[in-house]
Order: sequence, then structure tokens, then C-alpha cells
Amino acid sequence: MGKFIVIGERISVTAPAIKRAFDEKDPEPILARARQQVAAGADYLDVNIGPCEGDGEERMMWAVKLLQEDLNNIPLALDTSNMKAIEAGISVYNRERGKPIVNSADAAGRIEYVDLAAANDAIVIALCNGEGIAADNDERMGYLQTLLERGMEHGMEAEDLWFDPLFLVTKGMQDKQMDILEFIKMISDMGLNSTGGLSNNSNGMPKHIRPIMDSCMVAMAMANGFTSAIVNPNDLRLMETIKSCDIIRNNCLYADSYLEL
Amino acid sequence: MGKFIVIGERISVTAPAIKRAFDEKDPEPILARARQQVAAGADYLDVNIGPCEGDGEERMMWAVKLLQEDLNNIPLALDTSNMKAIEAGISVYNRERGKPIVNSADAAGRIEYVDLAAANDAIVIALCNGEGIAADNDERMGYLQTLLERGMEHGMEAEDLWFDPLFLVTKGMQDKQMDILEFIKMISDMGLNSTGGLSNNSNGMPKHIRPIMDSCMVAMAMANGFTSAIVNPNDLRLMETIKSCDIIRNNCLYADSYLEL
Repeated sequence: MGKFIVIGERISVTAPAIKRAFDEKDPEPILARARQQVAAGADYLDVNIGPCEGDGEERMMWAVKLLQEDLNNIPLALDTSNMKAIEAGISVYNRERGKPIVNSADAAGRIEYVDLAAANDAIVIALCNGEGIAADNDERMGYLQTLLERGMEHGMEAEDLWFDPLFLVTKGMQDKQMDILEFIKMISDMGLNSTGGLSNNSNGMPKHIRPIMDSCMVAMAMANGFTSAIVNPNDLRLMETIKSCDIIRNNCLYADSYLEL
Repeated sequence: MGKFIVIGERISVTAPAIKRAFDEKDPEPILARARQQVAAGADYLDVNIGPCEGDGEERMMWAVKLLQEDLNNIPLALDTSNMKAIEAGISVYNRERGKPIVNSADAAGRIEYVDLAAANDAIVIALCNGEGIAADNDERMGYLQTLLERGMEHGMEAEDLWFDPLFLVTKGMQDKQMDILEFIKMISDMGLNSTGGLSNNSNGMPKHIRPIMDSCMVAMAMANGFTSAIVNPNDLRLMETIKSCDIIRNNCLYADSYLEL
């Protein structure tokens, strides 16, 4: 198994400071968060510009160039429902350190994002979901098959589809958490890659609990073969957990200084 | 699956202050550590009096009465290679809150500790080990079968054998860690209980790393169905992890205050 891949989630217009920076084409708030995430160990950065129907293409190109020029061609996940904006971003993307990630497809209204990834030799985050939340792992597996076949039909390598089980809120769906972990094991047993927005599991919990719960969830998921996650790399406890689980999985050679690497 | 069972490891003659307290029949150092562990969430307390060939029977009886009288009949794991001392301890043991645990049997020179547990209606920690460290999970499973059959032949319920995979030092045996986790999954898939001295995995690591590594190991083990561990309950990070994984496993109902419970 390869080293676990950390996709930093903090460049997102859901944060008011980042939305303003995009609106005003102000590089500094975006670069500051990007540098913090890379310093903390992010392998990829997610760039969430929102639906961005108007000037999405221009915005994504601007962000891709800005981030890659500043951060030694850091690989990026291009996160928007505007397909033209994703293609525009890829047109200026430097692949030196990794393919771009299309974030994201699902097995219903967003299936064409698989085609987009295939046409652009990109990775795609493939959400194992249809019109609503899957009732069980049989349904999730059906969506996975739909997404996998779609990618294969369009010439993708299976390893470029990163399947997302969709983490569910523990407060309210506590009895579904082991299903999600089991589904990650099913993905891993098929030899496929996985990812997901981990912190959804701790949504609504008190602030001091979320890093604890997120750390436990990622460790349990990593025991089941989870290969990547979309997280806040500046959550120290979470990053310590990911690095330590990678030691246990024998993905990184142990050294007393491994937490600083 | 039932709530994860925490066996507190801190009453042990390997600690000089505890050895002195046993030698001098001084209750206070022992009770202080016992109360700290119970307050932090220990379900059982391990009482390790060492080989104690001489006055082991008297020492174990003294300790069992001391701890159970002070702590509302807290259940105990009786930890010594002196079989008569274990039997003596059980003779004064109050079962109100759980059977005594015999710590421990293995599949070689210590197989009679299974018989001892069977004869005294006790739980036994059954180390899946022979004369040396098992080379792989086939060998571990052979030892498990030997121990399980021995218990069944002597009339034990399978649930009263708590199988210990023997955690291995990550520094030096890094490539064996996933085998241990897989073996825990095998135990769980057979519907059997498991336990083990978790901190062996972080032996020799810098002090600040050990709680991090132990937390990751227990979370990964809990993902694989681990049912109990012998740990330091006063390691806050570790206990937060165990409680949170029990929420994810749906063994305890979530409340915003679950870490304080």
C-alpha cells in the first residue's frame, strides 16, 4: 500500500475570508492557507470555488497558476460543479508532481464528471451515492460499479477513480458508522483507492471533540485500507494520527522523528 | 458487540513504588493508583505481584481484599506466575461486578493456567504464543486452537478465553504490525474475545510519541473487533480514543458529554 494521501480542504469559498480573496483576486489569504497546509503535510490541496457559474473558468485558472507557482507545482483537486471551470483549470495545470483531481462525480446527476476526468487524464473522486444517501453497502456497491464501469468505458485506469463512501454524521446516524468502515474495507479488498470528507462524521459535535473523533475515524478507516482523505491538515492531532497509522501500516519507515517529517 | 473493556495495568511490582508498598504492606500507594485508574474509566484492574514464589498467596489475598473493599468490588485480573497465589486470590474474590481474570496462559509452558481458570470459573487471558514469538498468523491460529480446545475440554465457555495476539515492538518489527491487526480480525470473525498489552507496540519510542502510537494502535485494533486491552487508563489521549471508537462502533450511545462519562 502506498503512503496515505492527505488532501487539504482549507481553500474553500465556504470560508468567508477565502470567498473574499477570490472575489477581490487577492492572493495573500489563499497563499497563506495553502502554505500552512503544505507545511503541515498536505499532499494535495483542494480548491473549492463553489458553483461559480459566471467567471468560474477564469477563477480556477487564476487559482491553479497562483498555487502551483508559489508551491513548487503542488498537486490540486479542482472542486466545483462548473465543468468548464475544471477543464480550464486543467488546461493550465502542471502535472510534475501528480495528476489533477476532479472533485467530484457521483452515480446520478454528476456521472459526467467521470467522463471529464477520463478526457483529461485526471483522477476523479467518485462518490458512491445516487440521488439520496445510500441505504446500505449493497446500494453503495451498486453505485461504485456504475462509476467504475463508466470510467473503464472511457479508458480510465481503475486506480484513478478514488471512491468516496460518504462519511455520515455520527450525531444522528451513529448506527451507520461501522457500515461506512466496512465499505472502505470492501473498496480496499477490490484493490481500489478511496477518499472522503472525513470531518462530516463529527459534524455538530462540540469543537474540542471533533479532532478526537476525526482522528479515531481516520485510524479505523486506515485499518480497513483507506488510502486518502480530504481533511484539515492543520489539525495536529489528526495529522499525528495519519502519520502514526502509516507507520503501523508500514507505508513509511519508522524514525523517532517521524512526526516532524 | 459489548462496550470495550479497559484493564488498568498500573498496579504492578515492576513499578518500584508499588513493589515497596507490597513489601511493606502499605495500602496507600496501591489504593492511590487504583482510584486514579477507576476514576479514569478502568473496568478491571490488573494486580501484578511478580513471580512471588514465597508469600504470593498471602500477598494476593491481601491485595484482592484491599482493592475490592475500597473500590466497590472492582473486578480484578490476577497477574502472577504463582498459580497458588491466583487460587488464593480467587478464594477471597467478590464476583458481584465480574469474574476474576487469570493473567495469563499461553500454548506452551503456561497452558495449565487455562485449567486453573476453568476450575475456578474465571476468565483467562490466553496468549497466542508458544515457546517463541509466532512467525505468522497460521502459527498464532494454531496456538489459539490449542488454547480454545483446552478451555472447552475443561468446561469453559469460549467467551471466557480472551485471546491475546501479543503486540510486537514497532521499532524493529514494523513490518509485523498489520499481521497483528489481521489476527485480531480473525479472532473477532470467530466470535471470540481479545485483549493484550497494547503499549508493547510503542516500546522504545520517545515518551511524547507513545500515547499517540498507542492511541492509533488501539483505534485500528478496535476497527478490527478488538474487545479489551491492558493499558494505562491515565493516558488521557488513549482513553479519549477508546471512548470515541466505542461511539463509532455504536457500543455506547453518543452524548456531547461522552468523554466525561
